[in-house]
Amino acid sequence: MKRRWRLEELAAFLAELRYEDLPQETVSRTEELFLDWAGSALAGGRERPVRVIERVARKLGAREGSCEVLAFGWRTSPLFAALVNAASSHAVEQDDVHNGAVLHPGAVVFPAALAAAQEAGASGRELVTAAVAGYEAGVRVGEFLGRSHYRVFHTTGTAGTLAAAAATAHVLGADEEEMVDALGSAGTQAAGLWQFLAEGADSKQLHAAKAASDGLLSAYLAREGLRGARGILEGEKGMAAGMSEDAEPERLVAGLGERWAVLETSFKVHASCRHSHPAADALIAGMRENGLAAEDVEVVRARVHAGALEVLGDVAEPESVHQAKFSMGFVLALVAIRGRAGIEDFSEETLRDGKIRAFARKVEMVLDPEVDGAYPERWIGLVDIRTKDGRTITSRVDVPRGDPGNAPDRGEIEKKVRRLATYGGAPPGNVERIIRRAWGLREEPEVGPLLAERAGEVRP
Amino acid sequence: MKRRWRLEELAAFLAELRYEDLPQETVSRTEELFLDWAGSALAGGRERPVRVIERVARKLGAREGSCEVLAFGWRTSPLFAALVNAASSHAVEQDDVHNGAVLHPGAVVFPAALAAAQEAGASGRELVTAAVAGYEAGVRVGEFLGRSHYRVFHTTGTAGTLAAAAATAHVLGADEEEMVDALGSAGTQAAGLWQFLAEGADSKQLHAAKAASDGLLSAYLAREGLRGARGILEGEKGMAAGMSEDAEPERLVAGLGERWAVLETSFKVHASCRHSHPAADALIAGMRENGLAAEDVEVVRARVHAGALEVLGDVAEPESVHQAKFSMGFVLALVAIRGRAGIEDFSEETLRDGKIRAFARKVEMVLDPEVDGAYPERWIGLVDIRTKDGRTITSRVDVPRGDPGNAPDRGEIEKKVRRLATYGGAPPGNVERIIRRAWGLREEPEVGPLLAERAGEVRP
Repeated sequence: MKRRWRLEELAAFLAELRYEDLPQETVSRTEELFLDWAGSALAGGRERPVRVIERVARKLGAREGSCEVLAFGWRTSPLFAALVNAASSHAVEQDDVHNGAVLHPGAVVFPAALAAAQEAGASGRELVTAAVAGYEAGVRVGEFLGRSHYRVFHTTGTAGTLAAAAATAHVLGADEEEMVDALGSAGTQAAGLWQFLAEGADSKQLHAAKAASDGLLSAYLAREGLRGARGILEGEKGMAAGMSEDAEPERLVAGLGERWAVLETSFKVHASCRHSHPAADALIAGMRENGLAAEDVEVVRARVHAGALEVLGDVAEPESVHQAKFSMGFVLALVAIRGRAGIEDFSEETLRDGKIRAFARKVEMVLDPEVDGAYPERWIGLVDIRTKDGRTITSRVDVPRGDPGNAPDRGEIEKKVRRLATYGGAPPGNVERIIRRAWGLREEPEVGPLLAERAGEVRP
Repeated sequence: MKRRWRLEELAAFLAELRYEDLPQETVSRTEELFLDWAGSALAGGRERPVRVIERVARKLGAREGSCEVLAFGWRTSPLFAALVNAASSHAVEQDDVHNGAVLHPGAVVFPAALAAAQEAGASGRELVTAAVAGYEAGVRVGEFLGRSHYRVFHTTGTAGTLAAAAATAHVLGADEEEMVDALGSAGTQAAGLWQFLAEGADSKQLHAAKAASDGLLSAYLAREGLRGARGILEGEKGMAAGMSEDAEPERLVAGLGERWAVLETSFKVHASCRHSHPAADALIAGMRENGLAAEDVEVVRARVHAGALEVLGDVAEPESVHQAKFSMGFVLALVAIRGRAGIEDFSEETLRDGKIRAFARKVEMVLDPEVDGAYPERWIGLVDIRTKDGRTITSRVDVPRGDPGNAPDRGEIEKKVRRLATYGGAPPGNVERIIRRAWGLREEPEVGPLLAERAGEVRP
């Protein structure tokens, strides 16, 4: 019973992590990820499931506090700010993703870290450092849990709870023991099943919301002395034992302080499930290079990794806008016809567009051994395009847009965030202020409120 | 995708359940279970993990509302009343248990149902009916998930979330669709791992707290329109797929309206893990029938089902009072030496009592095929007592005390509740009022506040 668990080693690293330890590029990247996340949080306020969660938070939650509900303009306690902001930032499928862990870290780390920082009066440097810790925890737990876990469990819900716990505990100044307790309580709350997707149910935003708020809760409980299980990851009755068949414990601690999860995280260019992006990029490239229009295409065969089949395979004919983001056919139809699959391209109108739906039916997915072998470290885009005049064109993209090796610059991120904010109906003053704040985050003595205007409810 | 899931059949039954449908004995038993639960809720306020959870609820939760935090005398929103009352009622190991599901239904159903009823101004009949629905959902899901689930997952945390969701949704007047949504959102939040026990961590109360509050949250979300997955139990990416190897779907719906989970639920006489009770009863009987004192005993061999070994086998030498409740040796030592293992018998004093600790080391557990074969439907108590003068006495109890076939009468329940309330330091006026309210629950036009005095903090 006195063995040293890898969770303890990880917790020691996270608790001891200081701003001064961070390579400059991780600080810059974290500011970029923060702004990218804030854009998604502003956009998501328009989505029905998020609005439901916000209404219930108003009813059941704290009606005062210093923590902003970004898309709705009111303030509450850290728990409910984390809950709603996480739901909101995970709604429009534009939030960041870590390929190797198949995790959306931003949607769970920043809601928790920001809420705790606003409550605690923490500095921008502390927010950055806490976020780096959160990404590190979430990504490592996600990698640890392996592909068998992701087949049934939504890693952003499960590993995401530990990510949020680590970030919050860091803001609260946790020592190693408190960090262990926070991670232990988070792990025993970790939940989230993929069943909702095939049915078009609303659980995806709930998973992010609960991961952020449960993780945050775990950290506050740890600070007050609630003890968590240090064997929660590797133990005989822990997460791997119950929720994985191919867990790799070494992933929890390998290269701590040498590799940085924030630097491995991808920005989303397309507003769809990340599993559709490599094929979308490959289709765009293949059509452009060969001067093809959508009308020229007979069949598109997307050659994908197994994870894509598992997640996207459930959606044959999307019945909702959100489901359309998980339809390979719909996404490839959008990029073939419109040249892009941005946030405005998923709507009730496009959902009912006969031309898009017809193209979507031309798309098939097959497992490709090479693509699958490279996954999840590399997400290769590979499509075979059969044209109406009988040619078959194979198009390949090795580094999809948004990946670390093909990342957007700050100007591109600003543009994306403005588009997201416009979609969400956020007052322009708020957006510009958040952009300014993000680029100077490391210099802020106190994070405080992000919104320029307390706009009350922002509802279209 | 249009198949009819058993969850839907179950949801239809639960949503349509009316007070008038309930056999009188289920109403009486529910009042008894309610009072028994309230006693545990009052007692638990003294325990450290519960006090931690209460402090954090004060910090992060709503500071106003009509829902009582029973052991602490303040009011809040339904979410936080459910959270703290559940933690509190699951802390002293005196709350009820369903043998077949290996679930503590009271600790998750009543906190959620009571909070929702106090918020909604519901009647006593509605509270009774909602509780019956909650027990039904939790017990059936627990049975469905099977023994493989219970080996790693704490069913009170997992199935308990659906139990709380069903009870709350019933109070909120859910129709079948809303009940489906509530259960679907609850299932995708279901969590709780046994890892904490071997380490003596504090997760057990957290599991109950979160099951009650997450279930309640699911029901409120369903009322506002958040859609849950109807395949969350049986689907390819649902609970059984991710968290069980021996799920039995038929258990979800077999005998709906013919058997009643509340009538199958056991009251706890001893203040320890239920897995220790059958052996404790058998040891008491064997010693009494043979005129043995503790000093006469050389070895006690408890012949148990596998579940007892899995849960109690982790605790060799208990290091905390709570762990002692999960030590077969400690529990049998108490009943051998003191003739009982009541709430007052687990304390820092007895934990350090050399005589008790010495007896505890005389106790061994072995798997018994007959006992194991009867489990979980029947929990047979079977011990071999080897005496110092060389005899081996086998003692057997087929129906442990507190089981439905050996249930306490109302006077015994009152006595237990008064002892629990005294332990928790509750004002006597509150206890007597709760007893009166419970016995007239079915006649209450509005449940309203239970406490006679808003005592502020009740802390020893």
